[in-house]
Amino acid sequence: MDESLLNENNGILDLGFARLDTDRRSRCGFDEVVYCSGKEDEYLIEIFKTLYNDQGRVFGTRADKRQGELLKKALPGLVYDEVSKTAFLKPEKEELIGRIAVVTAGTADIAVAEEAARTCEYFGSYAERIYDVGVSGLHRLLSKVDNIRAANCVIAVAGMEGALPSVIGGLVFNPVIAVPTSVGYGANLGGISALLTMINSCANGISVVNIDNGFGAGYNAVQINRLACKNN
Amino acid sequence: MDESLLNENNGILDLGFARLDTDRRSRCGFDEVVYCSGKEDEYLIEIFKTLYNDQGRVFGTRADKRQGELLKKALPGLVYDEVSKTAFLKPEKEELIGRIAVVTAGTADIAVAEEAARTCEYFGSYAERIYDVGVSGLHRLLSKVDNIRAANCVIAVAGMEGALPSVIGGLVFNPVIAVPTSVGYGANLGGISALLTMINSCANGISVVNIDNGFGAGYNAVQINRLACKNN
Amino acid sequence: MDESLLNENNGILDLGFARLDTDRRSRCGFDEVVYCSGKEDEYLIEIFKTLYNDQGRVFGTRADKRQGELLKKALPGLVYDEVSKTAFLKPEKEELIGRIAVVTAGTADIAVAEEAARTCEYFGSYAERIYDVGVSGLHRLLSKVDNIRAANCVIAVAGMEGALPSVIGGLVFNPVIAVPTSVGYGANLGGISALLTMINSCANGISVVNIDNGFGAGYNAVQINRLACKNN
Amino acid sequence: MDESLLNENNGILDLGFARLDTDRRSRCGFDEVVYCSGKEDEYLIEIFKTLYNDQGRVFGTRADKRQGELLKKALPGLVYDEVSKTAFLKPEKEELIGRIAVVTAGTADIAVAEEAARTCEYFGSYAERIYDVGVSGLHRLLSKVDNIRAANCVIAVAGMEGALPSVIGGLVFNPVIAVPTSVGYGANLGGISALLTMINSCANGISVVNIDNGFGAGYNAVQINRLACKNN
Amino acid sequence: MDESLLNENNGILDLGFARLDTDRRSRCGFDEVVYCSGKEDEYLIEIFKTLYNDQGRVFGTRADKRQGELLKKALPGLVYDEVSKTAFLKPEKEELIGRIAVVTAGTADIAVAEEAARTCEYFGSYAERIYDVGVSGLHRLLSKVDNIRAANCVIAVAGMEGALPSVIGGLVFNPVIAVPTSVGYGANLGGISALLTMINSCANGISVVNIDNGFGAGYNAVQINRLACKNN
Amino acid sequence: MDESLLNENNGILDLGFARLDTDRRSRCGFDEVVYCSGKEDEYLIEIFKTLYNDQGRVFGTRADKRQGELLKKALPGLVYDEVSKTAFLKPEKEELIGRIAVVTAGTADIAVAEEAARTCEYFGSYAERIYDVGVSGLHRLLSKVDNIRAANCVIAVAGMEGALPSVIGGLVFNPVIAVPTSVGYGANLGGISALLTMINSCANGISVVNIDNGFGAGYNAVQINRLACKNN
Amino acid sequence: MDESLLNENNGILDLGFARLDTDRRSRCGFDEVVYCSGKEDEYLIEIFKTLYNDQGRVFGTRADKRQGELLKKALPGLVYDEVSKTAFLKPEKEELIGRIAVVTAGTADIAVAEEAARTCEYFGSYAERIYDVGVSGLHRLLSKVDNIRAANCVIAVAGMEGALPSVIGGLVFNPVIAVPTSVGYGANLGGISALLTMINSCANGISVVNIDNGFGAGYNAVQINRLACKNN
Amino acid sequence: MDESLLNENNGILDLGFARLDTDRRSRCGFDEVVYCSGKEDEYLIEIFKTLYNDQGRVFGTRADKRQGELLKKALPGLVYDEVSKTAFLKPEKEELIGRIAVVTAGTADIAVAEEAARTCEYFGSYAERIYDVGVSGLHRLLSKVDNIRAANCVIAVAGMEGALPSVIGGLVFNPVIAVPTSVGYGANLGGISALLTMINSCANGISVVNIDNGFGAGYNAVQINRLACKNN
Repeated sequence: MDESLLNENNGILDLGFARLDTDRRSRCGFDEVVYCSGKEDEYLIEIFKTLYNDQGRVFGTRADKRQGELLKKALPGLVYDEVSKTAFLKPEKEELIGRIAVVTAGTADIAVAEEAARTCEYFGSYAERIYDVGVSGLHRLLSKVDNIRAANCVIAVAGMEGALPSVIGGLVFNPVIAVPTSVGYGANLGGISALLTMINSCANGISVVNIDNGFGAGYNAVQINRLACKNN
Repeated sequence: MDESLLNENNGILDLGFARLDTDRRSRCGFDEVVYCSGKEDEYLIEIFKTLYNDQGRVFGTRADKRQGELLKKALPGLVYDEVSKTAFLKPEKEELIGRIAVVTAGTADIAVAEEAARTCEYFGSYAERIYDVGVSGLHRLLSKVDNIRAANCVIAVAGMEGALPSVIGGLVFNPVIAVPTSVGYGANLGGISALLTMINSCANGISVVNIDNGFGAGYNAVQINRLACKNN
Repeated sequence: MDESLLNENNGILDLGFARLDTDRRSRCGFDEVVYCSGKEDEYLIEIFKTLYNDQGRVFGTRADKRQGELLKKALPGLVYDEVSKTAFLKPEKEELIGRIAVVTAGTADIAVAEEAARTCEYFGSYAERIYDVGVSGLHRLLSKVDNIRAANCVIAVAGMEGALPSVIGGLVFNPVIAVPTSVGYGANLGGISALLTMINSCANGISVVNIDNGFGAGYNAVQINRLACKNN
Repeated sequence: MDESLLNENNGILDLGFARLDTDRRSRCGFDEVVYCSGKEDEYLIEIFKTLYNDQGRVFGTRADKRQGELLKKALPGLVYDEVSKTAFLKPEKEELIGRIAVVTAGTADIAVAEEAARTCEYFGSYAERIYDVGVSGLHRLLSKVDNIRAANCVIAVAGMEGALPSVIGGLVFNPVIAVPTSVGYGANLGGISALLTMINSCANGISVVNIDNGFGAGYNAVQINRLACKNN
Repeated sequence: MDESLLNENNGILDLGFARLDTDRRSRCGFDEVVYCSGKEDEYLIEIFKTLYNDQGRVFGTRADKRQGELLKKALPGLVYDEVSKTAFLKPEKEELIGRIAVVTAGTADIAVAEEAARTCEYFGSYAERIYDVGVSGLHRLLSKVDNIRAANCVIAVAGMEGALPSVIGGLVFNPVIAVPTSVGYGANLGGISALLTMINSCANGISVVNIDNGFGAGYNAVQINRLACKNN
Repeated sequence: MDESLLNENNGILDLGFARLDTDRRSRCGFDEVVYCSGKEDEYLIEIFKTLYNDQGRVFGTRADKRQGELLKKALPGLVYDEVSKTAFLKPEKEELIGRIAVVTAGTADIAVAEEAARTCEYFGSYAERIYDVGVSGLHRLLSKVDNIRAANCVIAVAGMEGALPSVIGGLVFNPVIAVPTSVGYGANLGGISALLTMINSCANGISVVNIDNGFGAGYNAVQINRLACKNN
Repeated sequence: MDESLLNENNGILDLGFARLDTDRRSRCGFDEVVYCSGKEDEYLIEIFKTLYNDQGRVFGTRADKRQGELLKKALPGLVYDEVSKTAFLKPEKEELIGRIAVVTAGTADIAVAEEAARTCEYFGSYAERIYDVGVSGLHRLLSKVDNIRAANCVIAVAGMEGALPSVIGGLVFNPVIAVPTSVGYGANLGGISALLTMINSCANGISVVNIDNGFGAGYNAVQINRLACKNN
Repeated sequence: MDESLLNENNGILDLGFARLDTDRRSRCGFDEVVYCSGKEDEYLIEIFKTLYNDQGRVFGTRADKRQGELLKKALPGLVYDEVSKTAFLKPEKEELIGRIAVVTAGTADIAVAEEAARTCEYFGSYAERIYDVGVSGLHRLLSKVDNIRAANCVIAVAGMEGALPSVIGGLVFNPVIAVPTSVGYGANLGGISALLTMINSCANGISVVNIDNGFGAGYNAVQINRLACKNN
């Protein structure tokens, strides 16, 4: 059994208002990441600073613009990306390994896709963006098949009926991580319809993460991409 | 206002156990059709005989094999088709007009598709069957695009994630009637997932009928095909 | 197989922030249309201008009043209609062909109906508006039956319990496209109840589009109306 | 406060396996009724006998054919009706008062309607049956409007999309009790779709009971009919 | 068949933006009522004025405070009630007949109950209010049983788990109209949970209207109360 | 940290086809219990024998009649109870401590209640059964209030609308464990409606277990009853 | 039967706008508590004052900051806690008895947990807070197992997938009250997903309260803790 | 663009009743697999024979025992495994590469897990089975952590509340494919509850396939395992 599970004093950084899981990188291979939405300003800043000190870098998701500005002031060098709502500080210049294709059905899915792509990049994987290639204009997707096939893992992001992953699944060797988005209206049920589409996919090699969960897809893709690159 | 709406005595054939709407052909252009499932044997036979006498032909859906045998005995010349579960008697040889494409994603969707195709044919429209061309093997669908485009109306039948109509919708000029099927398991929710997919389609020109409702799709397609052919 | 599917360079107008499907008219018979809601101002304007240059006309849906004003300034001659939230610029005077009946149950359904009617008109079909004829005051509907029957296609728009299409379906020869609206409260589930009503309709010839999807219904109706008129 | 609420010993007939509420008639004006489905044979018979002895008459619902035969043997004179699945023994010849219209959309709804009608009759109200007048053939309903209007209360029974009560609600002065049935398939969700339709009705004067609950509708209608007749 | 159904010119007051059903009182016994929510100011005022001229009185529901002030200015003598959000003008002093009990489980249900009570009163029925007698403090309800039993009809209004109608149903002779409210949080699903509770009630004599539909319950209760009083 | 969590070899009895958690009594205070439904005959018998040898007693739930007979042959002295579908062998005569009230709304809920009561008794707690006291005949419940109040914990079992726990919750000092049952039809949604009722209860002191989960309620009640008795 | 149920005049404090259940402490052992959300300012203050006069102390939940300030002015000595949104005034210094563990999965669940903890404390029970020990970093939970086991009752608060109670249930002797929270996004369905997880728990000894219902969990835990302490 | 997409004649083996996608291995790296459930006997056999001839091996899922026997007769050497309901014929002895951990929460989940494991093995990956280590007896899981961590990919199979993947996700470096099963009862909603739990997981690196979809999980795991092994 892994020793880290038994040690009461290690692996937890207790800030009073939060208990940071500083053991994550050794246990799972990834830094602790900050979900910024809803966090109080002073707590958010302290968490970012503490993790930066502990890990030498830090990554936050779902940060609104105001939070982004705040963090940039608190941590010089931190980058805030408005589309993906991510904030990150990663001093060292790192070479990005492998290849993950991040594909969207429409332009409205790009925010979620960018959260995924930024996650890939923060964790050292190369992400190729292929956006707005939804199945109602199939020639747009077919013209990009070779790029998609070249990736170790495909992140397929789609709202409305969410058919994109099924079509991609039938064209590639490698795993497809399907991300339903809340894009749409009426019977889209806030993304549940797209989620059901993807879960019921007749194509193989498709697995699904939560609605709008670009971060989760990116994390999962990095795991796969690292495996594909580890023996090089 | 149409006179038929006001006449209390006409347009209804009261069998005691049912009130047949014999006014349908003049009001809507279609014979009254029999939904066989669950009907008592003697009533079923009497309804078939009465409608045959009144209309000169008769069509029934959702008839199980036992009912089919029964009807064949009661009405010489009646045909029972086991795949589509339809029973029909239509003495006159009629030329089928226009063209309706009936397309399925998988082989398990064929029973519903055949109900649609038989309905098209009973009501005088030509149905071209294009089966097992689901989106997870896109080359199968692409090899049939010309045939699908040639139709005045496309009936697209799919279970599981139901992505087929979205892909077809982006390839054709004419209307696509999407039929979700209950084919699948788990989170397919008895066809609700496929129904939601189709209702949320990002492609245009798609409208949806009830789960497994091949008859409804066929009826709708015949209306469109007749309009397309009426001025020839 | 259609050549347009194979050409990697054609059929896509890449603006960086969007990949316009300029191949639509040749592939499906309809211009590319703009879904305005949520688009950034500068992108919205550039898309309108680009499509106008490419197609000689342009049509947008779900544009709020502010967007409408913006577009009017950017494209002289553009019309913004506040009820339907559509914006369009179509210089040539075109004769509207055929007849599509756009019918609503209540006055609150008119916004969705107008989106449908404006879509019909933009794509060259004549739309006859018949509003506020819901089934709880049946005389209002019955007084308009002849007008509804005269159409090649009926768009029936209803919220709350959504019973209107079922009643119309039993009175007409031609297809009925049912549009559920989110009008109502409580157990209307944002339009899902009306959608289920329409999907389960006992009347034939009814197919259904997404909640509040006036554009989709209009597009579908134009397809049918064009078929009905094509041989004249 | 009503004394019967306080008396621990009265109003309950304890059979060991069931505690019969013999206080119902004095408290609510109705006999205790037996829901037969799932009851063990010997218990069922004892309950029927006990209630018959106590009340001088007895009524059971949801009795299958085998139970019906059993009860007929146990209680001479008891009538079992196979369509409504009701069993009753009511020696005295009673004049039925007032008028309740029991209306169905289709023939498949008749079983539920008969449960309602038999309930009305057992409790002394006159029930007029008007069956198979669904809204897809409106002339059938319109030809019966006068009969429906003449009733003190209308029980409107419908499956599939359940639109019948909305149309009737707009044509009558008196209350409409809507009974959704589980008739239909696919997205009817076992009757939930029809239930939602009726709950969302745009017509006034409509209230709803559980799916297939003919007994509940009959009971409710008898309450109303008694009120309407009480001062004669 | 009723003549009013056939007359194309009567029974409709066409204002251009709405087609008022002025035939309601003769067809159903009730004035046309105005659902104010979402109506444009000028249209709202014109509808109120037109109906007042036509009917000699007028009643509106779901009017917010601003609309209430506006209507008071436009129609001198009009009363706006902020709790029930009703606006009404009814010059003649009318004696209220019969008795309807309007009962709520909690204080948060009072707004819906008042909509019901005001509806009863506008249509000439006497409403007795019995509020805040929910089942978690049963002594509050039991102390009012005699008052509830004395009514021709009970309107039982409850949110959260909605158990009140079941308890009342077992204590009274006359019909109970159950009104689920959206009061509650979490798994109350905006009132759907209370609606399901009421629809599944084991007590008899209960029928259900839409969530928060105080008006519908009041209308239904007036129908019943009128029947109970008509022979006096 | 508890040592038992760290020991890889203890606390698991590996039968090949199952890994029995023999550590449960020391970790949680309860024997491992067997969920019989769906288990293969030979495996079922071996599990019973193994646990009996290890624990000196054994308890199984959801055993159908055939399984019960089988187990009685395999383990002399084992008792099978057909109503609760439990099978148990507990040689020592144990005094039952404290008091748990097991209350049902109807007779159809008794099977679930008996599973709860048998669980209480197997684990050494005294269970008082109070059945068929649903809220539609309130006098039945009120006559038993003193008995219910005397218990350390109340298990309230109800199907259909599931209102019983709310009424009991307002009458007692001690915790109420609510058990929704699948009893009912139509909109009861297999017990989900009763579950929602109970979760939304306006009364305090109520917590809820899964539909038909008599065992879970019994286990939970025993925990509470033991706490109440532990200092005597 | 308890006398308090029969007394019409006692046990109710009628303020006109509310009927306070002052009988609660004698009937259930707990003061009447105020649910502040949505109450008008003057009514809120009067309710607090009246209850304080009647009970000598008072407790309110779901009070927003503005209400908290208002109440502090109206009732000197009243404490308002912003995290838990509770307001309370309890002059006497009371020793807290027993031990209740209040455990959360994440930091975003703390607001709900604090409502539970404050409820425990107001009603005289000792609450030990153990926060941010969710199952994705198991070492955090395992390091606290002894503390959790020492409690008479565990309140386990979790959003997202809500797995925490299942893990705790397998580690303790005493009851676990599971509180799902609305924390999460996408398919969390406002907390319904976590609620379902907890209701379906494979661990024993777990019962569930409504989403975000910290007060209900606290009340339930106090009942259990009191039983555990009553014989000391 | 891949040439195989354009060739109309290749990549499809048309049997009349089915169009086999023989292009799969070259396009996706996997043989075409047969979903046996519901296939007619003669068609099933012909499909197996045809694929065996074409691919040199064949694999079928969801084959019931009768189908298994039939296939064994038709294809000498074919193995039918009753637990996983798989049938396969793979003459060549192949070394299994890498490592996939297949983990279940309970014994009832083993059927689904075996479908996954057999899929892994058929496609050449080594599967390590770790069964019955659900979270309610955490010591069982913790004793296997090292084995789970050693895998390139974890398939975590769980019914009921489905908490297992969340706990595993926090302990490993590599991807976790979560498979919800339909195991459970009541509010498990046929597996939807477990599916929602997994989709909402707070742990990272988890993606989800359809309920009971062992094959899909196995396929996905093989993709990942191949990537991890490809450079060795």
